[in-house]
Amino acid sequence: MPEIVAQQPDAPVIAPAVILVRPQMAENIGMCARAMGNFGLSDLRLVAPRDGWPQKTRMKKGAWQAASGATHILDGAQLFETVAAAIGDLNRVYATTARERGQAKPVLGADGAAAEMLVRGHAGERTGILFGPERTGLDNDDVSLADTIITFPVAPRFASVNLAQAVLLTGYEWYKAATGAALPFAAHLETPPARREAVTSFFDFLEQELDGAGYFPEGEKRHVMARNLRNIFHRVELHEQDVRTLRRVVRSLADARQRRG
Amino acid sequence: MPEIVAQQPDAPVIAPAVILVRPQMAENIGMCARAMGNFGLSDLRLVAPRDGWPQKTRMKKGAWQAASGATHILDGAQLFETVAAAIGDLNRVYATTARERGQAKPVLGADGAAAEMLVRGHAGERTGILFGPERTGLDNDDVSLADTIITFPVAPRFASVNLAQAVLLTGYEWYKAATGAALPFAAHLETPPARREAVTSFFDFLEQELDGAGYFPEGEKRHVMARNLRNIFHRVELHEQDVRTLRRVVRSLADARQRRG
Repeated sequence: MPEIVAQQPDAPVIAPAVILVRPQMAENIGMCARAMGNFGLSDLRLVAPRDGWPQKTRMKKGAWQAASGATHILDGAQLFETVAAAIGDLNRVYATTARERGQAKPVLGADGAAAEMLVRGHAGERTGILFGPERTGLDNDDVSLADTIITFPVAPRFASVNLAQAVLLTGYEWYKAATGAALPFAAHLETPPARREAVTSFFDFLEQELDGAGYFPEGEKRHVMARNLRNIFHRVELHEQDVRTLRRVVRSLADARQRRG
Repeated sequence: MPEIVAQQPDAPVIAPAVILVRPQMAENIGMCARAMGNFGLSDLRLVAPRDGWPQKTRMKKGAWQAASGATHILDGAQLFETVAAAIGDLNRVYATTARERGQAKPVLGADGAAAEMLVRGHAGERTGILFGPERTGLDNDDVSLADTIITFPVAPRFASVNLAQAVLLTGYEWYKAATGAALPFAAHLETPPARREAVTSFFDFLEQELDGAGYFPEGEKRHVMARNLRNIFHRVELHEQDVRTLRRVVRSLADARQRRG
């Protein structure tokens, strides 16, 4: 493995190029662009698309429609005649394949490859991922141009992952690695998680009202019942507002009983 | 969180159900089935599909064609009128959503949810994941029926992940977790990685031949040059056969020189 020179941590990372080798269907090229857009990739390279590029009107419409808003990626796509030309400026190349090829190369999942591409990207290296034609996948000569093989953990009975799905899974793992798996939003909390003293105080209040209502039997059993009841609410991870709501619920039931009594 | 009772480690794990809520396009239902098949899921539940189920001939063909071999999943799909009915037998329900809903529920990525569903599945709990209609996603009443929200790390500018892709990403993370991320094949090695003594012996042989050829200058520089040369080959992770091949290459070049000389 080449030496990786650490750079300043806030240097922009170079994202991998997506290289579609002899893609057949315009719609699939569009779906790949959409998947790239979902996960922050933009360097799309096409090697000898079956129907040329940009494709004849009907086909072009298919690709641009399927891209669903990620059309700037299609507009910026570069066209190459050979895989060798498409990867010329890259430092490290990965080949996706669903089956063993008898070539002595490291094999990684999309997650392991993403972690490696991220380290290389931070070091200023350019990486790229080869994806083969829809029906056949990459041929062995294509694979031989890559340093490392990427494959996916799939159920043996249905091992066929389509082109856009393969781009989606590698893009997903790349973005997860590059963003530290940060999600677009976190749990919605109107109020902060309750402090323990508020929860304990609610328990005391509830048990006092239940004592008044004659809920608990005499003796040792009361302790066990109270503990079980507390454990129901412990599982809720109560927020401040929740505790206030539950207090009012108990008060409301107790008051209604008093009015009836 | 309910108490999780550990069971024997080889007990079969219960995989999550995939619940498509008011799906619109037959083709998308088929694509979801295919994604499920890729990742070992089979419990498909449909809540009020727009065009009924099984769908009228043209639509049915669309779903069954798009399933690409995973038709047993469509054949076994269960139909429900409401989300409540579809999740009735489950113990824990997850809702996928791309945007914040203002509901106080835990939010997990597909990976975190998969890890949790796996623990629950091993404990004999039944889990399920809700996916909303193509255009709008789940409505807030659907989300309110779930215990936990699943969302995906996506680029803010292109946050729209389509239905089959959402099923694909959750299925992928489930299968990764359930199989320990085992890949369908490992690096192809004709022979095992070389023992260090074979590599060192090759270096000695190479340097001896290079000495004979007059490659190295006199003095201190020879040591640095030899070390750099060794480091090129150290990066290769040589296998036994590779060392034999390289020895023959050096021998061949040396012999040719002798014949010329």
